[in-house]
Amino acid sequence: MKKAVVLCSGGLDSSTAMAMACHQKFDVFALSFDYGQRHRIEVERAKEVVSTLGIKNHLVQKLEFKGLGESALTSLKEIPKDRDMKTIASEIPPTYVPARNTIFLSFGLALAEGWGAEAIFFGANAVDYSGYPDCRPEFIRAFEKMANLATKMSVEGKLKFRIKTPLLFLSKAEIVLKGKELGVPFHLTHSCYDPAPTGISCGRCDSCKLRKRGFQEAGLEDPLPYLD
Amino acid sequence: MKKAVVLCSGGLDSSTAMAMACHQKFDVFALSFDYGQRHRIEVERAKEVVSTLGIKNHLVQKLEFKGLGESALTSLKEIPKDRDMKTIASEIPPTYVPARNTIFLSFGLALAEGWGAEAIFFGANAVDYSGYPDCRPEFIRAFEKMANLATKMSVEGKLKFRIKTPLLFLSKAEIVLKGKELGVPFHLTHSCYDPAPTGISCGRCDSCKLRKRGFQEAGLEDPLPYLD
Repeated sequence: MKKAVVLCSGGLDSSTAMAMACHQKFDVFALSFDYGQRHRIEVERAKEVVSTLGIKNHLVQKLEFKGLGESALTSLKEIPKDRDMKTIASEIPPTYVPARNTIFLSFGLALAEGWGAEAIFFGANAVDYSGYPDCRPEFIRAFEKMANLATKMSVEGKLKFRIKTPLLFLSKAEIVLKGKELGVPFHLTHSCYDPAPTGISCGRCDSCKLRKRGFQEAGLEDPLPYLD
Repeated sequence: MKKAVVLCSGGLDSSTAMAMACHQKFDVFALSFDYGQRHRIEVERAKEVVSTLGIKNHLVQKLEFKGLGESALTSLKEIPKDRDMKTIASEIPPTYVPARNTIFLSFGLALAEGWGAEAIFFGANAVDYSGYPDCRPEFIRAFEKMANLATKMSVEGKLKFRIKTPLLFLSKAEIVLKGKELGVPFHLTHSCYDPAPTGISCGRCDSCKLRKRGFQEAGLEDPLPYLD
């Protein structure tokens, strides 16, 4: 059976990417990160999604971003709210964490090499999140190229290692429909950057706005409750 | 003043690369990793080298490699001893840690972006350590290319970010001579993979053997004591 590491944040996108990896008959090792994010609840949700999809291997990697670079996701800086879709799609928001996806993918690569996986599934999206440099297709391809030179496997010339980003060019509505088709437990996923202490989504951050619009355009009901 | 992050293990090579960065008038931020390595003493030595070179900024990043992949450097597996130079130069040894340099450089990139540095100095060497995939020149160039697509800086098109590897094609003897010239405190550096509990170097692992030969060929005395 082919093996793949799947980066799994507990959100809608990575849960869908994970369901796609299972559907493509990959034996999946889920990899989540506990990096001091203010929406740490996503790690707990990730565990539930992983177990609901019947995946047995899950590593929650602890990471420390303190001292590396400022981000609203890991500090007390305010999460932007009520931004319009055009701004969301074009600006690098304060929720950007310096080199975060590079670090996540690097750990994915270490796990893939250790476990003998031939691919990493990564739920990056270049449509809604074009503001994030490390979600761009050219970044993904450059990372893949580097990964194919970084490992023991690459020296031994055994296999081309792949970074699979099946959601890269899908709209949020298309992701919702794909998730529905593959049985993603939407009610267990978490997308909000700034949830209430009870875990309820704010409904106003970029991530909530994109998610709500995605469900709306897909003509499906989002099972999550929102404050706003 | 130009700024650079320097990956600093406390060893001979990275200490020399750090002295070169200072000599080239970079404002230096030293970055070390505490990753459960059995030769953790190198982290303490790194602190002393950094302070002796008059560098004010030093981050010791804690990392967890457990669960990612097996390596003799982070497990109880035996460190190979008394290998001949030809084997050292050509085989991937059990001390290889999957994707380690990719992870180190990714954290370096995060720090560089957060601090506004334009370069990472990395003391990789492709002569003695050709067995390590992530010390090869083609890996370094691929990482640099990826880094130039990964960050906010790269989107804003401000600057070409560089991975500087001034030791890449030097012999160990040349590194020793360069370090001597720039006042590297050799007596504070640590190279051994398998030191005694007292911190004394074994003298027989790949790293000790390369270091000893380097000093010998340079015609200088290594101030470190060795068990063998």
